[in-house]
Amino acid sequence: MTYCTGILVEQGLVMLGDTRTNAGLDNVSTFRKLHVYRGAGDRVLLLASAGNLSVSQSVVSLLAEGMENPDTGEVERLDSAASLFKAAQLVGRAVRSVRTIDGPGLEAANVTFDVSFLFGGQIRGGPMRLFMIYAAGNFIECGQDAPFLQIGEHKYGKPILDRAVKFSTDLYDALKIGLISMDSTMRSNLAVGLPIDIAVLRRDALEPEVVHRIEAGEPYFHDLRERWSAALRAAHMAIPRPPYEPRKS
Amino acid sequence: MTYCTGILVEQGLVMLGDTRTNAGLDNVSTFRKLHVYRGAGDRVLLLASAGNLSVSQSVVSLLAEGMENPDTGEVERLDSAASLFKAAQLVGRAVRSVRTIDGPGLEAANVTFDVSFLFGGQIRGGPMRLFMIYAAGNFIECGQDAPFLQIGEHKYGKPILDRAVKFSTDLYDALKIGLISMDSTMRSNLAVGLPIDIAVLRRDALEPEVVHRIEAGEPYFHDLRERWSAALRAAHMAIPRPPYEPRKS
Repeated sequence: MTYCTGILVEQGLVMLGDTRTNAGLDNVSTFRKLHVYRGAGDRVLLLASAGNLSVSQSVVSLLAEGMENPDTGEVERLDSAASLFKAAQLVGRAVRSVRTIDGPGLEAANVTFDVSFLFGGQIRGGPMRLFMIYAAGNFIECGQDAPFLQIGEHKYGKPILDRAVKFSTDLYDALKIGLISMDSTMRSNLAVGLPIDIAVLRRDALEPEVVHRIEAGEPYFHDLRERWSAALRAAHMAIPRPPYEPRKS
Repeated sequence: MTYCTGILVEQGLVMLGDTRTNAGLDNVSTFRKLHVYRGAGDRVLLLASAGNLSVSQSVVSLLAEGMENPDTGEVERLDSAASLFKAAQLVGRAVRSVRTIDGPGLEAANVTFDVSFLFGGQIRGGPMRLFMIYAAGNFIECGQDAPFLQIGEHKYGKPILDRAVKFSTDLYDALKIGLISMDSTMRSNLAVGLPIDIAVLRRDALEPEVVHRIEAGEPYFHDLRERWSAALRAAHMAIPRPPYEPRKS
C-alpha cells in the first residue's frame, strides 16, 4: 500500500510519500515513490506514485529514457516538455505505453493494472501546477477550493486535509498538515509506513527548497505524532458528554 | 453510502448509523439503517446495515417474519434465539437466504451482492456481545483490544476510534467519540449524512437506555462539530512548523 499527498498553496507545493511496499502481506519492503526532477535549472518537477510497483517503476524508467512522439519522431522527456500540461500528458502517455506492453500479461495473471501518480511543479515562464494521473493516462488538476490531491490509501488522512488546508495556508504549515495526514494514515493502515519522503517547492524558485527523508525515530516527526495524539485526546475530552436522557420505560 | 459503528465498552454498547442512501448520485434518500429489537423484555438487540438497501431490507424483513430451521422445522426469530451467538447465526442465515433468492438476478444485472451488518446486544443470562456479519453470512466478534466495529464508509472515521476508544472508556464518552467519528465521515463523504440514529445499551439492563435520532440542526451535535473543528485547528496550529532547512544549491 501507499499514501502520497500533494498540497498546492499560494507559496508553493509540498509533496509527501511513504516508502512501504508489499507484495502480499508477508513481503514488505521499502521503495522510493517520490521522485524529484530538476532538468537544466529551468524546471522542478515532483512525481509520486501509487499502485503496482512494476508499473510505476516502468513509467519512471520510460520518462527517464524518453519516449518517441509517434507524430514528430522526436524523443520527448520531462526535461524537454514545453509546459507542465505537456509534461503531464507525457506521463499519461508513458502509463498507456506500459499498459500496452504489460497489460495483457497482468490481465492473464489476474493482476489489475492499478497505478496513479501525483505530478506537479513548475517550468520557467509557466505557473506552478499539480495533477493526478490515472491508470488510463488521463488526469485532473488540483484547484484552489480543495488545494490538495491524494493517491493510494487516501481516506484515513483526508479529514485533516479537508479541515485544515486552504490555498492561503503557509507552505510549511501545509507540510506540517501533510505530515499529520500521513500520521493518521500510518496509524490506521500498517501497509503505509516510514520512512517518509518529502519535498517542498517554493513558487517561482525553480529548484527544490527541501528534499528530505524522514526516518523512524526522527525527533520532529516523533514529536509531531505525540503532540497530535495528546491534542486529539484533550480535544475530545473537552467536548461535553451527549445530553440524551435515558428513556423512561 | 453508509457509515455505522458499534462500540462495546465495559459499561455497555453504543451503535450509530447514518440514514443517507443513494441509488446513483442523483437519487439520494433517507432510510433507517439502525434497528432496535426488544423481544419480550429478556433481550435487547441492535442491528445496523450497510450495502445494497434491497438486500439489507430483505434481511430485516426475514428476521421479523422468522425463518424455518430446515433441520427442526421450527420457525426461528431473533426474539426466540437462545443466545446472541445463535441470533448472529440467524442473521447470517437470513443473508444467505436472500442471496439464494436475489443473488442470481443481481448478478445478471451486474450488481454486487454487497451487504454487511453490525449486530449486538444482550440476552438475559448471557454476555453483551457485538458482531460484524459479512455478505457471506459469516461473522466476526468485537474484542477488547480494539473495542469497536465499523461497516460502510469506515476509513474516514477510523483514526479517532483507533486513538480514543478503549474498553474502559465511559459509555457516553464512547457515544461522543462515535459522533466525532461520524462527523469526520460526513465531512469527507457527502453520501453519509444526517439524520443519525443512535442507541445506547447499558450492560445487563436488557432495555435500551437511549434510542434517539439526531436531526440536522440539533444543538448538541452542532456544538460537537464546531468544538471538534476548533480543537483540531488549535491542535495543528500548536504544533511547531517542520524544521527542515532549505537546501544549499
